[in-house]
Amino acid sequence: MLTANQIMEINRIIQIGRLLLDEHDRYSYSFDASFGTYLPDAVVQTKHVEELAKLVKFANQEGIPIYPRGQSTSLSGGPLPVQGGIVIDLSVMNDILDIDEEDLVAVVSPGVLTSAIHKAAEEKGLMYPPDPSSSHVSTIGGNMAENSGGPRGLKYGVTKDYVIGLEVITPEGEIIQTGGRTVKNVTGYDLTKLIVGSEGTLGIITKAILRLIPKPPATATLMAIFSNLVDAGRAISNILSSGILPSKMELMDQASIIAVENYQPMGLPRDAEAIILLELDGHPLALQDEIIQAEQLCYVVGASQVKIPKNDMEKEEIWRARKLVSPAIVRIKPTKISEDATVPRSKIPEMCERLQEIKRRYQVHLVLFGHAGDGNLHPNIICDKSDPEEMERVEKAVAEIFTAAVELGGTLSGEHGIGNMKAPFMEMELGAVGLDMMKRIKKAWDPNNIMNPGKIFPEPGQKLELK
Amino acid sequence: MLTANQIMEINRIIQIGRLLLDEHDRYSYSFDASFGTYLPDAVVQTKHVEELAKLVKFANQEGIPIYPRGQSTSLSGGPLPVQGGIVIDLSVMNDILDIDEEDLVAVVSPGVLTSAIHKAAEEKGLMYPPDPSSSHVSTIGGNMAENSGGPRGLKYGVTKDYVIGLEVITPEGEIIQTGGRTVKNVTGYDLTKLIVGSEGTLGIITKAILRLIPKPPATATLMAIFSNLVDAGRAISNILSSGILPSKMELMDQASIIAVENYQPMGLPRDAEAIILLELDGHPLALQDEIIQAEQLCYVVGASQVKIPKNDMEKEEIWRARKLVSPAIVRIKPTKISEDATVPRSKIPEMCERLQEIKRRYQVHLVLFGHAGDGNLHPNIICDKSDPEEMERVEKAVAEIFTAAVELGGTLSGEHGIGNMKAPFMEMELGAVGLDMMKRIKKAWDPNNIMNPGKIFPEPGQKLELK
Repeated sequence: MLTANQIMEINRIIQIGRLLLDEHDRYSYSFDASFGTYLPDAVVQTKHVEELAKLVKFANQEGIPIYPRGQSTSLSGGPLPVQGGIVIDLSVMNDILDIDEEDLVAVVSPGVLTSAIHKAAEEKGLMYPPDPSSSHVSTIGGNMAENSGGPRGLKYGVTKDYVIGLEVITPEGEIIQTGGRTVKNVTGYDLTKLIVGSEGTLGIITKAILRLIPKPPATATLMAIFSNLVDAGRAISNILSSGILPSKMELMDQASIIAVENYQPMGLPRDAEAIILLELDGHPLALQDEIIQAEQLCYVVGASQVKIPKNDMEKEEIWRARKLVSPAIVRIKPTKISEDATVPRSKIPEMCERLQEIKRRYQVHLVLFGHAGDGNLHPNIICDKSDPEEMERVEKAVAEIFTAAVELGGTLSGEHGIGNMKAPFMEMELGAVGLDMMKRIKKAWDPNNIMNPGKIFPEPGQKLELK
Repeated sequence: MLTANQIMEINRIIQIGRLLLDEHDRYSYSFDASFGTYLPDAVVQTKHVEELAKLVKFANQEGIPIYPRGQSTSLSGGPLPVQGGIVIDLSVMNDILDIDEEDLVAVVSPGVLTSAIHKAAEEKGLMYPPDPSSSHVSTIGGNMAENSGGPRGLKYGVTKDYVIGLEVITPEGEIIQTGGRTVKNVTGYDLTKLIVGSEGTLGIITKAILRLIPKPPATATLMAIFSNLVDAGRAISNILSSGILPSKMELMDQASIIAVENYQPMGLPRDAEAIILLELDGHPLALQDEIIQAEQLCYVVGASQVKIPKNDMEKEEIWRARKLVSPAIVRIKPTKISEDATVPRSKIPEMCERLQEIKRRYQVHLVLFGHAGDGNLHPNIICDKSDPEEMERVEKAVAEIFTAAVELGGTLSGEHGIGNMKAPFMEMELGAVGLDMMKRIKKAWDPNNIMNPGKIFPEPGQKLELK
């Protein structure tokens, strides 16, 4: 709880922006797209970096928790104010979106929507590759905090690979610049890549410089249907080892196919065990050749059907199937737990088996889809959080999904982040010393633990809770 | 100086590897490809990670400096044992070089030569993109310590972009694993990308997992000759904004051209102000089209001649011109100071002007070449370190090159690292707070300052010394 004196001082600091104290206002900032509701003591909206820095300086002196927040699409609890304190609504800091065609960079404010960056870059013949599925509703600031991925990660990498410079307010309220406008920079430690993906625990990003690339002149799409999930896995391997690097390579399992067909019938075969959706991008002459190669590689391993759309409308229709998975599955039951456990590519078939086993053992409604090309699967469990008996089974199933991923040499999280949700599993993946090396950085930068406290690092005895 | 007891204990720890104490042996470890000679107290060669970890633990207790070293091709003093102590010769740790075609990764020991990784990957139809010019003589461990770049950085990025997992001995002698075999991993702070490029100040890399990509099926080369340096700059901009992303885009200035012609006449025009060398890679059909486009773009801005080699032999002949620059210029005078100040792409013409001004003002023999496509120029000053009057002018010229790069929004170092050489200039680029945030990480990880002390962070009053 903030004291009356603290509130008076915050009011004095926030001259240009707004301070929200009403319970109604604060309630809107108490949740994200994951679990739990935590009411902050105050919310600050400001576009003014210096005034925000002053606020952080004050919060650091007083030990008040600071929770930076974008559009709160986080699936792992990134922006949840789990210890009260002040939420910083960075969605209002959205003034700057400059595309520099000569330097091939974009300079952006953290509150800009990622899709707006896509659009601005494309208008100049350029591309900002990272494409989290939430890009139409999520901010670049949130994408940077969580190091978001997306389908194009396979060919182009993730958010971190495109952030080359930052303006950051440190946990002690100082404003620093990291990196710059050059792709090559080895001047000291790479603070840019340390801060991107640190989930707001090391500072507040107030501006970023993003690397852009020339937009590939053409794309080609392919949909391949398999009666057998293992054959689909082999098709993925064979295409990648043939020298073709697709821009996207998505997988839908039978449960996803049936969910989509029940929601909006698109003529997908309900008896198929898997569908692969593939996009290539590049020079049109190269694509003409490669898409035929990819088609043949699918048939060789036993695809029952391969579709190559002939025009943009047909392409969109095919990608719509993948996009409908999420809305389709929440029709089954109201609660969707979207995981992003990621395994080495060669372990995808084994991970699929482990997931089916978990589904059977705990009798949960598990749907599997995701970015198969880079091993970043999205096992989704569909459930009802008002049913405590079911949720207990779900909690156990989720814990086993994490264990399976780590045992197969993978990771707890490929692109959604740790937040408060996966914190209890950190030591399983990193070991005690590995986790301690991370904590030392946190402590050195944020000695009073005010920046997004309660995230990434597990509290003693903390357990997974889905409610 | 090590005490007799310390030497006895080190001898006890190093059972499998070798401890070198002879002055003759130690002398071979006292220099690198930069400046200065510093005799270490001892040299350890071991392939055994656990015994090396024990040694580090002991060194940490006793406060003995540890200097990891690969093949010592560093141009910034990375492996120099500037405070004595123990040099760890990691070139002997070279057993592992496994290419996994399914996961598209290579697992390597730090002592493996980078060119051996290129070769092993290519044999399986894959590619490890980073290609520092020293790759035939430098180790992957050194490349990781310095985050090496190379010509292909323009399209493919630098070493850091391909390191996804590490085994590291911490400064306190613990063995940790960071990252893993998946490209997507957001489980906690990105220690992998923090350690890569930290110049051996945060630990010793004893194993690495590198991401590979399918090898592009074809390449195409172009050489364009310009009577005017500014036109060459415009050609670079126009090609990049046309949507073509070359794999390499190299620049040679008139001084480089003349040096090569004096060394091994290749028929390059001595009156040309600049030559651009360009390589495209990808699908052969795409290249046929793009190389013609690139040729036209060069002619449009005033190239006097454009050559497109027809076969591999002709291609090699063209790239030989670029490779001869370094050996050619050291024939002029014995000492070569190779800088790697990097500027945003749009500032290349201005940087070229600033460099010509510096050349005139200090009457130094400055030769300019490098990776123009990503702003990573290599101004080289050719001098004679036995001439103190000349070296004084050279020191001033180098300091001004750094200043110019930072003033133009660039960086001190694009790919060679800071080492001891550029440490005095860190605060100019990073500011006091930025530098302090780096120091905090160093202190949190290495409280006794034993890992490569004297590097990156300037000592009070430290100045550039070239002798």
